[in-house]
Amino acid sequence: MEERVYNFSAGPAVLPVSVLKKAQEELLCLPGCGASILEISHRSKQFGEILAQTKANVRELLNVPENYKIMFLQGGSITQFALLPMNIIRNTNKAGDYIVTGTWSKKAASEAKTQGKVNVIWNGQDEKFVRKPSDAELQTSADAAYCYYCANETIEGIQFPTEPNVSVPLICDASSEIFSRPVQMEKYGVLFACAQKNAGPAGVTLVIMRDDFVEMSGADLPSMFSYKQLADKDSMLNTPPTFGIYMMKLVTEWLKEQGGLEVMRQKNVEKAQLLYDAIDASNGFYRVHGNKEFRSFMNVSFRLPTEELDKKFQEEAKAFKLASLGGHRSVGGERASIYNAMPREGVVALRDFMVDFAKKNA
Amino acid sequence: MEERVYNFSAGPAVLPVSVLKKAQEELLCLPGCGASILEISHRSKQFGEILAQTKANVRELLNVPENYKIMFLQGGSITQFALLPMNIIRNTNKAGDYIVTGTWSKKAASEAKTQGKVNVIWNGQDEKFVRKPSDAELQTSADAAYCYYCANETIEGIQFPTEPNVSVPLICDASSEIFSRPVQMEKYGVLFACAQKNAGPAGVTLVIMRDDFVEMSGADLPSMFSYKQLADKDSMLNTPPTFGIYMMKLVTEWLKEQGGLEVMRQKNVEKAQLLYDAIDASNGFYRVHGNKEFRSFMNVSFRLPTEELDKKFQEEAKAFKLASLGGHRSVGGERASIYNAMPREGVVALRDFMVDFAKKNA
Repeated sequence: MEERVYNFSAGPAVLPVSVLKKAQEELLCLPGCGASILEISHRSKQFGEILAQTKANVRELLNVPENYKIMFLQGGSITQFALLPMNIIRNTNKAGDYIVTGTWSKKAASEAKTQGKVNVIWNGQDEKFVRKPSDAELQTSADAAYCYYCANETIEGIQFPTEPNVSVPLICDASSEIFSRPVQMEKYGVLFACAQKNAGPAGVTLVIMRDDFVEMSGADLPSMFSYKQLADKDSMLNTPPTFGIYMMKLVTEWLKEQGGLEVMRQKNVEKAQLLYDAIDASNGFYRVHGNKEFRSFMNVSFRLPTEELDKKFQEEAKAFKLASLGGHRSVGGERASIYNAMPREGVVALRDFMVDFAKKNA
Repeated sequence: MEERVYNFSAGPAVLPVSVLKKAQEELLCLPGCGASILEISHRSKQFGEILAQTKANVRELLNVPENYKIMFLQGGSITQFALLPMNIIRNTNKAGDYIVTGTWSKKAASEAKTQGKVNVIWNGQDEKFVRKPSDAELQTSADAAYCYYCANETIEGIQFPTEPNVSVPLICDASSEIFSRPVQMEKYGVLFACAQKNAGPAGVTLVIMRDDFVEMSGADLPSMFSYKQLADKDSMLNTPPTFGIYMMKLVTEWLKEQGGLEVMRQKNVEKAQLLYDAIDASNGFYRVHGNKEFRSFMNVSFRLPTEELDKKFQEEAKAFKLASLGGHRSVGGERASIYNAMPREGVVALRDFMVDFAKKNA
């Protein structure tokens, strides 16, 4: 059997080995089914139990109050970028306030403009997306139905240290940090995340929505675009991505075994610190894009003095089983995504390689 | 290891055992990757090859001309029910002609009405959806951009013997019969199918679209709802359902090994005939819903003289490893879905059980 690498891909991304082994073991025959999870009806008793357990795990891990619906949808975050304003701006004749802190929140604001009034209440683009705003910089609009932000910008490698404080409900794209730390659910109208970074495979999007937001949905929308209809059918308006939900069940079970989200936060912060310490000790050989207090503990984005060295770094890393370290195609450089499932030893191996590479090439 | 059953689920549905074994074998480590298919970037070289190969297989099997795009989307068929009129009716100010032959085409017409003008040009509801129309019964509208139909109605168990002949391009929901027989692609503007019946797991929808239909898409739509934008990005506008596409690659490879779609058609017709012959020889003990010449060779829907016998039938079948024979919750009775991956011996086992059960209970 081929050896596994340390996979720093930004997404789809590393999953816990124990989760993969369990899925592998059951792939031909889910216990009690006589068939694969890939083959059983979404209306079967067995899948019903998987769906219910996954929801219960999510509710427990994120401490989700009872007045929030938990849904498993399709189409990734960019579909949510459209559905949120389609349901909540267009239908209520209100506006959406957007905090633009990087590529993904900029994209969300741009998609929202196809649906109605968008107020960009803070934009970090002129500063080259090196930081997140302070609460004092955020003034929500009089007609705002919500204030949208992206908790962690994977491309720029910057993260909100904590939820912003504003006077309207928050909508958060938590795609690249879901389950990496506790959240204050009460602040949210909606929290959503595609699964393929920290929660499972590509093809399922977790949407947690407060009941009043569910009720705002447009009755005139096609059923698959109406949160109300999706929520009323408990993610089963049509066949949901059954395998993705099953995988999220295994991942959330693993997270509970790890001790929950405060434990994960501590582990994640410590892993990230190993890399940032090496970067800060490199006398500028490695450079981080974002300002220090906003550095992401999920996506460590950095670059070397020249593009030739970037290339050499990624090439030589492969010999140490350190894979997928290339930065996003829009910015280049390096990006080490160190999600929940990246073990500490993978980060230590990368840190050691970085220290050694800097010594030889500085 | 638990024994596998013969799984007659209407979808998610049986997959070829060799496909499941291959996926299982590679689940921890895709050859050459050092990581699972669930963990690798959709922008990786390895996934790029999987996507290209899956497209090539689909093009070869269905004999798709070069002026058609092949896309792998999310959200199932009901999302397509909305996107098609959203892009093609609303944007062109034309109408959509709909042939309503059962639950699924009725649903498609209903979703389309949220987006613009819909002409139901034939409706089998008053006849209780027992047949498909003849060409002579179909008169397309002067303003029709397309004529929509559902090739196989899974719930009513009726199927078009061949494509209808009309004067505008066809749009076909082929969800429950894709890859079960050859198609005449030139007749189609769009052919689409969710994967979870005959092509793979839930969570990926195959959309084959002629270039002029792609070009009709609305430029003002959110990106994930615009066929033009989806097609231009070759299913990679955002992270596609990578595992579903990988599974469709394995399924289409298996279909090629079987000898292609004409071979599958013959096998499927023969399998269905085994069941219909037993039904016709049962002196009315088993009754089929649809008219004889429109009986589906994918979903054999039937019922017994009483609901008590329906229940007893399904219960006793389990002892013979014959599973998921319940009809759709909207109609009850029995449904044996015998897609490509259902082996002949499974159908023979069901036929033998049916003959025996009728003898004992008639």
